Amino acid sequence: MLKGRHLIEPGDFQIEEIESIMQLADNIITNPKGYSLVCKGKLLASLFYEPSTRTRFSFEAAMLRLGGEIIGFDDPNNSSVSKGESLGDTIRTIECYSDIAVIRHPREGTARLVSKFAKEMPIINAGDGGHEHPTQTLTDLLTIRKYKGGCDNHVVGVCGDLLFGRTIHSLVKTLNRYEGITFIFISPKELKMPENILHQLNPDSYRETTNLDDVIGELDILYMSRVQRERFVSEEEYLRLKDYYILDKKKMRKAKEDMIVMHPLPRVNEIAIEVDDDPRAVYFKQAKCGMYVRMALIAKLLGVEDNND
Amino acid sequence: MLKGRHLIEPGDFQIEEIESIMQLADNIITNPKGYSLVCKGKLLASLFYEPSTRTRFSFEAAMLRLGGEIIGFDDPNNSSVSKGESLGDTIRTIECYSDIAVIRHPREGTARLVSKFAKEMPIINAGDGGHEHPTQTLTDLLTIRKYKGGCDNHVVGVCGDLLFGRTIHSLVKTLNRYEGITFIFISPKELKMPENILHQLNPDSYRETTNLDDVIGELDILYMSRVQRERFVSEEEYLRLKDYYILDKKKMRKAKEDMIVMHPLPRVNEIAIEVDDDPRAVYFKQAKCGMYVRMALIAKLLGVEDNND
Amino acid sequence: MLKGRHLIEPGDFQIEEIESIMQLADNIITNPKGYSLVCKGKLLASLFYEPSTRTRFSFEAAMLRLGGEIIGFDDPNNSSVSKGESLGDTIRTIECYSDIAVIRHPREGTARLVSKFAKEMPIINAGDGGHEHPTQTLTDLLTIRKYKGGCDNHVVGVCGDLLFGRTIHSLVKTLNRYEGITFIFISPKELKMPENILHQLNPDSYRETTNLDDVIGELDILYMSRVQRERFVSEEEYLRLKDYYILDKKKMRKAKEDMIVMHPLPRVNEIAIEVDDDPRAVYFKQAKCGMYVRMALIAKLLGVEDNND
Repeated sequence: MLKGRHLIEPGDFQIEEIESIMQLADNIITNPKGYSLVCKGKLLASLFYEPSTRTRFSFEAAMLRLGGEIIGFDDPNNSSVSKGESLGDTIRTIECYSDIAVIRHPREGTARLVSKFAKEMPIINAGDGGHEHPTQTLTDLLTIRKYKGGCDNHVVGVCGDLLFGRTIHSLVKTLNRYEGITFIFISPKELKMPENILHQLNPDSYRETTNLDDVIGELDILYMSRVQRERFVSEEEYLRLKDYYILDKKKMRKAKEDMIVMHPLPRVNEIAIEVDDDPRAVYFKQAKCGMYVRMALIAKLLGVEDNND
Repeated sequence: MLKGRHLIEPGDFQIEEIESIMQLADNIITNPKGYSLVCKGKLLASLFYEPSTRTRFSFEAAMLRLGGEIIGFDDPNNSSVSKGESLGDTIRTIECYSDIAVIRHPREGTARLVSKFAKEMPIINAGDGGHEHPTQTLTDLLTIRKYKGGCDNHVVGVCGDLLFGRTIHSLVKTLNRYEGITFIFISPKELKMPENILHQLNPDSYRETTNLDDVIGELDILYMSRVQRERFVSEEEYLRLKDYYILDKKKMRKAKEDMIVMHPLPRVNEIAIEVDDDPRAVYFKQAKCGMYVRMALIAKLLGVEDNND
Repeated sequence: MLKGRHLIEPGDFQIEEIESIMQLADNIITNPKGYSLVCKGKLLASLFYEPSTRTRFSFEAAMLRLGGEIIGFDDPNNSSVSKGESLGDTIRTIECYSDIAVIRHPREGTARLVSKFAKEMPIINAGDGGHEHPTQTLTDLLTIRKYKGGCDNHVVGVCGDLLFGRTIHSLVKTLNRYEGITFIFISPKELKMPENILHQLNPDSYRETTNLDDVIGELDILYMSRVQRERFVSEEEYLRLKDYYILDKKKMRKAKEDMIVMHPLPRVNEIAIEVDDDPRAVYFKQAKCGMYVRMALIAKLLGVEDNND
């Protein structure tokens, strides 16, 4: 039962629970009208202490498409945070008004902290600092399920900034809970997957390389990621590395015909525009999956998925 | 009849009118679904020229839970105020789009001014500078009614910053219109209840003290208030006084078993966290009462409270 | 068929198409309840990269009064624009969440650019820099139709800043597509209608003057406009010219009894407050027309106008 639960990091849910969310997302995709009123009369508090239009829109569209409504803010400066109130009091007050809350906060651990104060209201972590972003992971899983038929038995290439990539760490840890996954980590040496993640994997289940060209032909899934300027110590380092692993038409020619290219977006230039029209490029479809999986998640946490009559 | 009226300060309404709002709030609390569509097709303009997440959320949740919708802003910098338009023109334009408006503005008297330009649209004052905040008063009254059975015949302790406390002045003036109220004002000498408020009270109906411990045992209601750093002339004065009147478990032991502790929130440290679990602490329930009383107020001013069929 | 089309500038639509929007707006005004659910389940993305409370409220109220819902932002600083994403990617992502989008952007041509990336989602230009603002033109046309019986055969005075007035250029070009329109352009020499607009008109269909008093008696419609401080090179120039063409009661005495006074709002002081109560002053009614015409436009572009059963 997911009703009343919080989602702070992907590990909070069993694989069976994640699969039940995927199943509901599938049903919603097939029959959106059947779910367009299940959240009638419910309110989502959309609490963005750090701006993130994409994630915020995805959650708000999800709630509205379930028939629910939104209260929220997208800028901490417009909130009353400055009056010295504790986050615990803030969340207990917001719980008076709303039925479920999404929180994004620049400080690691904030979502977990806040969830301890919410007595009845489920809390969804929409990103806390460099830490976790579990609904991106659910988005990635739904995309793989939808465009590769399921999450087991794939060779998954993960390319780009693997050192700082928050969403990538969550995805790898979660995919590792499925059967028959082989990872190929593709990054410059300076941005390798950190040891603490590698230690959680079976040594036979992954390889590391610095060359996308060498391995692209083996992949079922290629997960590209953004090189975030703000993660680098110097502008020179950024400029030297940012174009290192750019996916273009030439590289795509070596890839399998049924490989899919994923990206959490926004991209800067790590995928050339010319790739967008390739049917294997599913990154915009992935964004749409993000909305559907959030619909399923909200409905599950509120326990309203069967309100469709 | 409250339909079409403005609420700028508590004195705008007769006690009988206030009681009719309380009665409707009671009905909504008992049967929220019965009122979940009464504002269908109605729009609330939520005009926050000064940020106030708590108050804004309360109003917006109220409107949405009545089935209405919201347009609004929470930051004057994102509005077109800067183009030199008068507030009168602004409000006449907004009246083209919406059915009722809530306004919060840093300048005293703005809500009253604006209400003179609105020809058909009720205006609710959500705070104008240090002046009035009438829906906080309604919130306080509904809390007293709900948790003390009614607003007559109580010994009411009011503690903290009584000099600058906007919400406290409104509450005292309004409670004074009920029967059998005795006030005990508890504050440092520097932050005493101002003379112009005391002059409005029967001299037999109040006492002043500097010591919460001495009087807490007599109280039916203890209304705590925040010591606002920005009200003090110096940081030293603030530091000297802020912890002076902190409510903790030790003080609570001397209080009546059915006393209630109220606070308009946000609190800083004037109520110790350890008091939160005491059943007499109703300040978070008070926030919830705030939403319900705003639902009742909006429904009354729009004249839609009987749309529940 | 307007379904699925974009509206970037008034010239995108044939006169017959514009008239079909007007006709629908008339129907909505007559029977608003009949259209209160036609956008049920639809989402409007309200993308204001430049603040504009008035325009934003008008669009959002329009969508909500059709039964639709809103996601959006009113401040580019709270969006993820800063992460270096292209507008094309932004719009393709937003298309995953919403059914139609309104965009206002300070850079000329942005709405047109963005519309090329939207594959299924209609884009409405709500103003791009000094360039176009087509829904203001539709607003003006509906106002003329409603208060003058139709858009053909009028003497139209256009007064104020004719050089920089974005909304005025659009209106003149569009009215010029109707029958029997005579324009009288009234402005200081420094702010005359630009040559490129005049060249599009039949030389017999317009006159220019610097004196409102001389011509006001001939007019069926007087369109006043704001003198925008930010358009002037110096403060002195602004102060010298701004009060030059102020409409007051005295001037109104010379006007026809059935002339109407229009203004896109906000006004500063180019129309004296004393004129507001004159029945010929329709500028606030014009703002209301703006909401209705946007309702009609949204319903047409979504192809849902017949969902009223």
